[in-house]
Amino acid sequence: MNDPLDLHLQELRRGTVVLSCLQLLRTPGYGYGLLEDLERHGFATDANTLYPLLRRLEKQEFLTSEWNTEETRPRKFYRTSAEGERLADILTTEWNALTGAIRSLTDPHPVTDEEN
Amino acid sequence: MNDPLDLHLQELRRGTVVLSCLQLLRTPGYGYGLLEDLERHGFATDANTLYPLLRRLEKQEFLTSEWNTEETRPRKFYRTSAEGERLADILTTEWNALTGAIRSLTDPHPVTDEEN
Repeated sequence: MNDPLDLHLQELRRGTVVLSCLQLLRTPGYGYGLLEDLERHGFATDANTLYPLLRRLEKQEFLTSEWNTEETRPRKFYRTSAEGERLADILTTEWNALTGAIRSLTDPHPVTDEEN
Repeated sequence: MNDPLDLHLQELRRGTVVLSCLQLLRTPGYGYGLLEDLERHGFATDANTLYPLLRRLEKQEFLTSEWNTEETRPRKFYRTSAEGERLADILTTEWNALTGAIRSLTDPHPVTDEEN
């Protein structure tokens, strides 16, 4: 679990859970359903990571929440706010830029710089 | 600096600096030259982040180092180890998988699951 290789993998994945929650919660959802959706889309996470993250994103106003009291046991559902949609767009743009930067590292035609 | 948006961006970028160092140091290099190369390839970092990271990667045996004593002021140069090349390959594969997962979030054709 504390194998350095695993820690580097976790570090690479960490920011993607925020992005995936913001994208999926453009359609309002419960924590548990979101956990299943994330897994289905290939994001490995667990309730102990996800639920505090949802509360943090709500506190930061990237998510809004409401209680559904129509059932016997009230459940909280979350939705991405306008500010959260903006963050999702910014993170997606950054991801694409990083993907380009990573490709350039192993590209046989190096980046053109002022020396050329 | 502690704006939540910036923190989420930093979190998304964090793991990529490890990957980019491992890829660039397949060709041995000094810390300072690496800092310039990273910037040229689009990875924003600074010496205060990079130098401790290089020492940590060396301790974890993903990098090896040697002192160049041919100059007046000895300088340490780093090189990616065989284990580091393996980690770079694993992180690249993970990055590509995450890119696919992120695309699937906004894909109009949703992931096929058992309900279909």
